Amino acid sequence: MCEKNLHSAMGAIMTVFDTYAGKEGDKTKLSKNEMKELIQNELGPMMKDAKDPGQVDELFKCMDANGDDQVDFTEFMIALAVFTCICHGKEVDKSKVK
Amino acid sequence: MCEKNLHSAMGAIMTVFDTYAGKEGDKTKLSKNEMKELIQNELGPMMKDAKDPGQVDELFKCMDANGDDQVDFTEFMIALAVFTCICHGKEVDKSKVK
Repeated sequence: MCEKNLHSAMGAIMTVFDTYAGKEGDKTKLSKNEMKELIQNELGPMMKDAKDPGQVDELFKCMDANGDDQVDFTEFMIALAVFTCICHGKEVDKSKVK
Repeated sequence: MCEKNLHSAMGAIMTVFDTYAGKEGDKTKLSKNEMKELIQNELGPMMKDAKDPGQVDELFKCMDANGDDQVDFTEFMIALAVFTCICHGKEVDKSKVK
């Protein structure tokens, strides 16, 4: 059974980040290319703009809070938390319509 | 294969929150009892203080940003993001020691 619990979800988030951040340059941070690849592979179905270069650049700028042209784990986690809250809000709205 | 990707991790986080929040009272928020149960069941192995009532009360107060004696999904996600960053930092430190 695929344990759908919090502990494995947190582990998956860390594994995904480390996998993409480890591809080039600083192994502890996402470059823009690494972030583009992560978004398209991991969140493509959920983000209609995942293929739009302009939108991805905008998103990268928002995530890169300290402006070092890279996204560290904390910046990544903040963006993921915001995105998850948006998705959860939509789920709640959908369940009210049913 | 248990897909260890971001999309299913986000889904698991939402499912865990909704499962525990739906047990009593307001179905969209965690009561203190629901939060205690969630922490002990889901994060027990990771949190040595999960069984200490005093520590759990402290944690609940920290999570309850608007002071309504309940934890909504945004408050929960902020706490989870902080906790995941702490765990990730420890993992990075461990890998440096190897």
